Amino acid sequence: MDTLHAVTPRLLLIGASGTLGRAVAAELGQRHDLITAGRNSGDLRLDLTDAVSIRAALAQAGPLDAVVCAAGNVHFAPLLEMSAAQWNIGLADKLMGQVNLSLLAAEYLRDGGSITLTGGILAEQPIRQGASAALVNGGLESFVRAAAIELPRGLRINLVSPNVLTEAMPAYAPYFRGFEPVSGARSALAYSRSVEGAQTGQIYRVH
Amino acid sequence: MDTLHAVTPRLLLIGASGTLGRAVAAELGQRHDLITAGRNSGDLRLDLTDAVSIRAALAQAGPLDAVVCAAGNVHFAPLLEMSAAQWNIGLADKLMGQVNLSLLAAEYLRDGGSITLTGGILAEQPIRQGASAALVNGGLESFVRAAAIELPRGLRINLVSPNVLTEAMPAYAPYFRGFEPVSGARSALAYSRSVEGAQTGQIYRVH
Ligand SMILES: NC(=O)c1ccc[n+]([C@@H]2O[C@H](COP(=O)([O-])OP(=O)(O)OC[C@H]3O[C@@H](n4cnc5c(N)ncnc54)[C@H](OP(=O)(O)O)[C@@H]3O)[C@@H](O)[C@H]2O)c1
Ligand SMILES: NC(=O)c1ccc[n+]([C@@H]2O[C@H](COP(=O)([O-])OP(=O)(O)OC[C@H]3O[C@@H](n4cnc5c(N)ncnc54)[C@H](OP(=O)(O)O)[C@@H]3O)[C@@H](O)[C@H]2O)c1
Repeated sequence: MDTLHAVTPRLLLIGASGTLGRAVAAELGQRHDLITAGRNSGDLRLDLTDAVSIRAALAQAGPLDAVVCAAGNVHFAPLLEMSAAQWNIGLADKLMGQVNLSLLAAEYLRDGGSITLTGGILAEQPIRQGASAALVNGGLESFVRAAAIELPRGLRINLVSPNVLTEAMPAYAPYFRGFEPVSGARSALAYSRSVEGAQTGQIYRVH
Repeated sequence: MDTLHAVTPRLLLIGASGTLGRAVAAELGQRHDLITAGRNSGDLRLDLTDAVSIRAALAQAGPLDAVVCAAGNVHFAPLLEMSAAQWNIGLADKLMGQVNLSLLAAEYLRDGGSITLTGGILAEQPIRQGASAALVNGGLESFVRAAAIELPRGLRINLVSPNVLTEAMPAYAPYFRGFEPVSGARSALAYSRSVEGAQTGQIYRVH
């Protein structure tokens, strides 16, 4: 009997240096060749707000089996004090940055590859000052369900929606009273399910 | 015993000339003084993509007990053919247009007044070419839940998510095969629940 020739899959991880990204790297790095990217960190330079930089990083990354985004900025402020520019941060960065990443990844991924985006619990459970985060996370959930039915070549797309992370509570606790924090390691399992499972159009809630 | 002095509430309806808006006007016009608005139709000129025009219409409308939006454009196209400008239509018009309308209405509405926005079934049930509509509708659902907890003065905000309308099927049927259309009249009941009920942060699904 022949031995199965196992090739290590290649995964581009955006935001690998962050609170969430470090945990995702620890989990998926065990079974993937990781290429990491960020604005100022990682193997490649990529800014979600700049589609040209996204394409350049995808082109430089070489053949890819998976793209995972553990990055994305939104502005938190009282609802009636948000300026147009502050709303635009979430729209251009976490929302359309991840949409553009998905559309471009669809060109560069190998057949059957996967895209995994990051949303968050605020899509469903609001907090004060979190209207932009809610809007962005809710938009991403519906985008992923819709994109899944149009991606070609067996490509898959899912979203992970983590609760507030235990590791982030030193900074975020005052805004997330009563929320039950989840560890980065537990959240990272949802990224594993998305990348290493076979579903598409799913929202993996780590709540 | 004194007679209750019933004052007819005043409602600004954006998109009153449209397929959905006509049905909302027929229902709520029975018990409200309607002030209608649109880009080229209605009592007042208002373009959702232009915050200055939204403020001007709210200022001209006089005292208001309710603002209802039955308008909002998005671009439908195959996922991988959408240009940045086409994504921006949905972001600037149906999504941020209704967000800006809500934030400005919060300044102009009487205490205890209500805001009712329009989303749609594509937030949950995608169709081909509907990724932008999905993203926009999903973002609006989460925005409404979040805005509800921060609005001052007893103001309320809800969203109605209609299925495809029976009245729109002559044009939309090829894109909505197997969807069970709902009448404008039935959808209008959800606007009545939002305006004439007492809940906030709700998504009224007419599915
Ligand atoms: N922390 C939580 O509790 C939590 C909970 C739920 C969801 N989330 C979501 O998870 C994501 C990451 O959060 P985090 O707390 O891990 O953030 P973080 O610790 O600030 O890390 C962010 C990571 O993303 C990169 N990054 C930031 N902006 C970028 C951009 N525009 N383009 C490319 N890379 C960018 C950063 O590297 P560079 O600085 O080098 O760019 C860094 O590696 C966010 O979308 C957040 O909303 C976080
Ligand atoms: N039709 C359906 O089956 C259906 C189902 C679910 C959800 N919806 C949603 O319901 C809303 C209305 O749909 P509809 O089919 O009734 O549309 P419609 O028949 O085209 O009517 C649109 C109405 O809104 C006004 N309008 C359009 N763009 C505007 C803007 N930027 N600013 C202000 N007013 C604007 C129009 O008047 P002017 O041209 O004078 O501006 C018109 O009164 C949309 O958000 C749509 O996504 C529709």
